[in-house]
Amino acid sequence: MTQTTTQTTKRKLKTPKTYMQGEPLSPWRELVYEVIFEADTFAGKCFDVGLMIAIIGSVIAVMLDSVETIGRVYRQWFFYIEWFFTILFTVEYILRLMCVRKPWLYAKSFFGLVDLLSILPSYVALFFTGAQSMMVIRGLRVLRIFRIFKLGEYLGEAHSLIRAMRASRAKIAVFLYTVFIFVVIFGSAMYLIEGAENGFTSIPKSVYWAIVTLTTVGYGDMAPHTDLGQMIASAVMIMGYAIIAVPTGIYSAELAREYNREVTNTACRNCGEEGHDPDAVYCKYCGALLHPE
Amino acid sequence: MTQTTTQTTKRKLKTPKTYMQGEPLSPWRELVYEVIFEADTFAGKCFDVGLMIAIIGSVIAVMLDSVETIGRVYRQWFFYIEWFFTILFTVEYILRLMCVRKPWLYAKSFFGLVDLLSILPSYVALFFTGAQSMMVIRGLRVLRIFRIFKLGEYLGEAHSLIRAMRASRAKIAVFLYTVFIFVVIFGSAMYLIEGAENGFTSIPKSVYWAIVTLTTVGYGDMAPHTDLGQMIASAVMIMGYAIIAVPTGIYSAELAREYNREVTNTACRNCGEEGHDPDAVYCKYCGALLHPE
Amino acid sequence: MTQTTTQTTKRKLKTPKTYMQGEPLSPWRELVYEVIFEADTFAGKCFDVGLMIAIIGSVIAVMLDSVETIGRVYRQWFFYIEWFFTILFTVEYILRLMCVRKPWLYAKSFFGLVDLLSILPSYVALFFTGAQSMMVIRGLRVLRIFRIFKLGEYLGEAHSLIRAMRASRAKIAVFLYTVFIFVVIFGSAMYLIEGAENGFTSIPKSVYWAIVTLTTVGYGDMAPHTDLGQMIASAVMIMGYAIIAVPTGIYSAELAREYNREVTNTACRNCGEEGHDPDAVYCKYCGALLHPE
Amino acid sequence: MTQTTTQTTKRKLKTPKTYMQGEPLSPWRELVYEVIFEADTFAGKCFDVGLMIAIIGSVIAVMLDSVETIGRVYRQWFFYIEWFFTILFTVEYILRLMCVRKPWLYAKSFFGLVDLLSILPSYVALFFTGAQSMMVIRGLRVLRIFRIFKLGEYLGEAHSLIRAMRASRAKIAVFLYTVFIFVVIFGSAMYLIEGAENGFTSIPKSVYWAIVTLTTVGYGDMAPHTDLGQMIASAVMIMGYAIIAVPTGIYSAELAREYNREVTNTACRNCGEEGHDPDAVYCKYCGALLHPE
Repeated sequence: MTQTTTQTTKRKLKTPKTYMQGEPLSPWRELVYEVIFEADTFAGKCFDVGLMIAIIGSVIAVMLDSVETIGRVYRQWFFYIEWFFTILFTVEYILRLMCVRKPWLYAKSFFGLVDLLSILPSYVALFFTGAQSMMVIRGLRVLRIFRIFKLGEYLGEAHSLIRAMRASRAKIAVFLYTVFIFVVIFGSAMYLIEGAENGFTSIPKSVYWAIVTLTTVGYGDMAPHTDLGQMIASAVMIMGYAIIAVPTGIYSAELAREYNREVTNTACRNCGEEGHDPDAVYCKYCGALLHPE
Repeated sequence: MTQTTTQTTKRKLKTPKTYMQGEPLSPWRELVYEVIFEADTFAGKCFDVGLMIAIIGSVIAVMLDSVETIGRVYRQWFFYIEWFFTILFTVEYILRLMCVRKPWLYAKSFFGLVDLLSILPSYVALFFTGAQSMMVIRGLRVLRIFRIFKLGEYLGEAHSLIRAMRASRAKIAVFLYTVFIFVVIFGSAMYLIEGAENGFTSIPKSVYWAIVTLTTVGYGDMAPHTDLGQMIASAVMIMGYAIIAVPTGIYSAELAREYNREVTNTACRNCGEEGHDPDAVYCKYCGALLHPE
Repeated sequence: MTQTTTQTTKRKLKTPKTYMQGEPLSPWRELVYEVIFEADTFAGKCFDVGLMIAIIGSVIAVMLDSVETIGRVYRQWFFYIEWFFTILFTVEYILRLMCVRKPWLYAKSFFGLVDLLSILPSYVALFFTGAQSMMVIRGLRVLRIFRIFKLGEYLGEAHSLIRAMRASRAKIAVFLYTVFIFVVIFGSAMYLIEGAENGFTSIPKSVYWAIVTLTTVGYGDMAPHTDLGQMIASAVMIMGYAIIAVPTGIYSAELAREYNREVTNTACRNCGEEGHDPDAVYCKYCGALLHPE
Repeated sequence: MTQTTTQTTKRKLKTPKTYMQGEPLSPWRELVYEVIFEADTFAGKCFDVGLMIAIIGSVIAVMLDSVETIGRVYRQWFFYIEWFFTILFTVEYILRLMCVRKPWLYAKSFFGLVDLLSILPSYVALFFTGAQSMMVIRGLRVLRIFRIFKLGEYLGEAHSLIRAMRASRAKIAVFLYTVFIFVVIFGSAMYLIEGAENGFTSIPKSVYWAIVTLTTVGYGDMAPHTDLGQMIASAVMIMGYAIIAVPTGIYSAELAREYNREVTNTACRNCGEEGHDPDAVYCKYCGALLHPE
């Protein structure tokens, strides 16, 4: 979804040069910056793990809060927990803004917006306390679950996956485009054949059925009842079953190419041969050290 | 999402040599031809984008028209919209026919037929206005959704996808043939075991169930109730789960081969054939030197 | 499922050397043999196509016969059709037995048994005409659908598919074995958690549910209702979703290896280099003819 | 189906050096050890096959016992069978403990625990015979089915499968992590949109629905009813249909790499490391010549 180049991946994402370039910051901002944005120091690692636990904790709290039987009994507790996490994330947000050189740039970035949205609902809910706006508040309270997006920044490791996905983007788009044409055609056909009396009340609903069928989900809330409808449904299913091969094939082939590229990036400085495995220490052709420093 | 620039793919599709060969056309037909069939000029690109928007717009109109609650209220509006698009596509169809050298050849081509079918239903509906033929008209009105096929011509990018599909055609056919034999066998077996009292009222219906199960769609409108039936269903499911590997494997392997081949676009200067391996020195079809200098 | 080596695949299957070895047959048996077992002559091809149509026709007849509304009205017609096909296949079976050198060997082969079983039900049904044995007869009548197995012999083209399948057999077995252990474990766990009141009435039924879920079929006739049950079900689903990669990966890798082997089978007689594409006429390294005769 | 001969895989699993190292055992313990832990001798093979039959037999017994109609009628028989297998596995467990050099190490190993857990439930059930604890006993009786884990040790052949799985572990984790974020997001969105009146009573339940949909299982016990809900559901389905390509692609590419590597089992004579490419001349880990003659 997001990332970049080497091992310090996610850190670099949040600190593009624009945030830190120019004259040095004051010592304490430097320190806070290191703790919050870098993961190299011990304090930085502690902060990362602590924040991750806080995110997951707050997400679990929102989930349990939504369960009728739990939410009613422990209402008071959830109220305290909500504000604990809200204040925690607010402090974190303010610190982040303060220690970067260009706060506005950070505030506009994807994770800056996620940080803001993860604290906003609680504050806004303060102003809608009338009994008539219960639903709005519930909606706002649920929105806090989007804090889970904050976990996104822990997604390292995904280098080759994302590169292969980006490389096959155009082909996947063609695939989805074809799928889109087919579900519209088959949905309309089923609307004509089955009709409203069998649950196919409109074309959009029939297209929804075609998607449910082609993707092999098959809820069963809408199912063909006429003979002709069942024949067409069979065709859609077998088609869905066969064309699932297409994105898989695209992605497999792309990833295999990606892997090959990974292997052949290092050249031996002694004999110049390439094609060394990622874990190789010595050149397999001449026995020289691959990374001599 | 769609459009590609590379080789002029789709244009070639619509203008095989037969349409344009021979003596030059009159200047204005030449101009119309360029705007409608080519995408190189600015006017041509505008036309393409405009037509695409019109197609999608008309498809959305037909879809919304079919929704009971919307269709009843805005009946008049949908009537106007329908005729606006019908006239637009009629003009486009006539222009296409006029500016190609062999109109009949174009009219018989796939996209020629699609163009005709996308305007025909509206005109035919004019002659069936009696109250008794409401269903026919509804059917005709819905048929207009097949205009979405007109989008097909924007499918560039699909070169290697389609080539790999064509290359694996025979193997996919064998696969579908085997699947067909299995669903008939298992469907008949379930008809005998479960019988009409559990919903397996006939062999065709049981075969339909077998397809629903093998493709892992699983509506649940028919499900085995006897112990033996559930054992056989389990076998069908695991089989379906395992053999989905077959088309995927075929297509992946074919696409990987296609990717490897992609590297060389070299055409032999002797016979003009393409598809030579990167390390090829001589043309594999005629034996001539590939790079004679 | 079955086959062998080169282009005359399926023919060779039915005529292993044991059938034809030794002294020559009488001329008319030789002729019948050629028509029935070989596909090289015009008569042989006609016979093949005719037989294929007859098989499909008889299968469709059995299927339609089972549909209540059709079967009752056209009972007489289906009776005639059944006996027409029965006599046709009987004649074919007798001819096959007569023109091979070792009838007993043929009768015991897979397709020999299929041929016999496709005519037997009709004859056996003659002796069970009492009203009390209607169900047995229905069963016998339905068994005729297994004639579809006779189509199996038209499965050529499947060379590399079957070879790749055979090569990955051991790995697929390990995979199914693991799946088997998991569905038993998860099924039993759900039996304990959900219990009979939620439809999980016994361990075999719960194992059936686990198979339905792991293979992503999901009928919905049994679904978890307790919170813990839904958590375990989620684990099963995600596991099923992730491990479908295993057979696909196995088969893709095996097929890719198969494809590579296909490519490198021909060596140039001039320079000795291998790795020519299947459609190559000239050696791509030295330009010599690959198959000089 | 199972057993392999090649490298003594599973044997090595159960007899790491710690079990057998040091001074020789007494002759009869040596003999028992060979029969139980090794599969090379005739007696050892007989023991393996016998144990496998016993495991499968006991698992089938537990499964049938749970079927109401069978379990009630043959209660006495199942009681005898249960104790027969319990005593058999107890003897086996004691013998295993006696003939290894470090019983405690074996008892703590995975298969040591499985062996213990497969006999424990029966013994514990002896002490809970009061009528009020029927459910506990049923639970204990069902737990015996976990004996199926004892089959795990027959899983040889799985070398390259497991190695490829381990190599792609990090990537699969990233994939599952992303899936987890998405199902929480989409589940919460559906909770807001559909609400309790359409069955989406809480966020955890809605997340359960998102998992059911994304994995294309689709029970149909919860399905969207509002238009917006069906649109989001369509997005989830198509996403699920497209991203199933990711684990498959990862695993295929990894397995293909594994296959290529399989060719060479050469170990370096200097450092003992394996996994060298077929064309390697020097060890890639220590730089020593691989074939020094």
